Amino acid sequence: MTNFDYLRNGEDIYRLSFETIQKEANLSGFSPAEAWVATRMIHACGRVDIAPLIQFSPDLVATAQRALSLGQPILCDSEMLAHGLTKNRFSHNNPVICTLHDPQTPLLAQQLGTTRSAAALELWKPHMAGSLIAIGNAPTALFHLLEMLDNIPDKPAAIIGIPVGFVGAEDSKTALAQQAPVPFLTLHGRQGGSAITAAALNALASSHL
Amino acid sequence: MTNFDYLRNGEDIYRLSFETIQKEANLSGFSPAEAWVATRMIHACGRVDIAPLIQFSPDLVATAQRALSLGQPILCDSEMLAHGLTKNRFSHNNPVICTLHDPQTPLLAQQLGTTRSAAALELWKPHMAGSLIAIGNAPTALFHLLEMLDNIPDKPAAIIGIPVGFVGAEDSKTALAQQAPVPFLTLHGRQGGSAITAAALNALASSHL
Repeated sequence: MTNFDYLRNGEDIYRLSFETIQKEANLSGFSPAEAWVATRMIHACGRVDIAPLIQFSPDLVATAQRALSLGQPILCDSEMLAHGLTKNRFSHNNPVICTLHDPQTPLLAQQLGTTRSAAALELWKPHMAGSLIAIGNAPTALFHLLEMLDNIPDKPAAIIGIPVGFVGAEDSKTALAQQAPVPFLTLHGRQGGSAITAAALNALASSHL
Repeated sequence: MTNFDYLRNGEDIYRLSFETIQKEANLSGFSPAEAWVATRMIHACGRVDIAPLIQFSPDLVATAQRALSLGQPILCDSEMLAHGLTKNRFSHNNPVICTLHDPQTPLLAQQLGTTRSAAALELWKPHMAGSLIAIGNAPTALFHLLEMLDNIPDKPAAIIGIPVGFVGAEDSKTALAQQAPVPFLTLHGRQGGSAITAAALNALASSHL
């Protein structure tokens, strides 16, 4: 019978993983709390070389944690991201909202001449004030959010904007960092995605901070 | 009012994304069908440099597609992966099964002295024969699967084994490729995760192939 030699204890695996990341990744530009969030993002994708591309606005960690502790909603651009949140960490019953598959979204996309991922954000408006926004998939959603925020008096608390891909991802994250309408966290360049974004949110919700 | 200049048409975005990947990534070692699956995996993480780390066993694409067309179940190691499958592509009503949060899993993990991710696979046994297995998160799950398959006469059809991380990920994927108990797809090294794994499955289920 095959029996491989590998670590089977979850806590040991986590500890050794985080030790490896802290040894290999350059986290010196981050505060301790930021370094913890960055470590979880690196853990989610298996690449220490994303460290220099991670950007926190100075007030991101405190602002996001305050929004979470107030029970504010988490608005997600994809179902995968919404299902990547570790529920027992979010102890203030934050509603997790994803409107991508709302029946109104396809028509909205047609009317606005944009993707469904971007149009779905129109349905966030009643939940936007004070919320935590997480965009982990679609660059068009992040662009659309920045356009919407020009016209919305009730701003979200913070934006975790980490869309992925080869068209618009890099530019939309540059725009987020330049406009910075509210505190934000991003991972510059093409990399991103639901897993890295969920890891960032789970880290912000963790008792380590 | 802010109005950014970016592509808003989903089809145009996909086409330009895939053109960019095909231009930048070395896909020459793959069959056309494999190259399509690899393109979707690259698209999901934003990195063309994973191409040489992607390994298909020669019969993976045909075997996986046959399992899908027979309505076989898809067994997933994480909820995030299960929710990353684009339902309307899976036109043969394949059940999507994830047992990580089954009430029996924590006790099984304790009894077996392993992680919950690995123990959850014990509950796959009634669904295993002919299934498509997708491991996109936990290296311990992939190791445990290889150990289980020694004792199970009814093998799955194929394994998509792409766990991520700094402890066991690389070794578990090497073991998958060496043992190769059934046709498999993997991404060697530390990289992996639910998003890349879901992208591979969605590509295998697509009408492009």
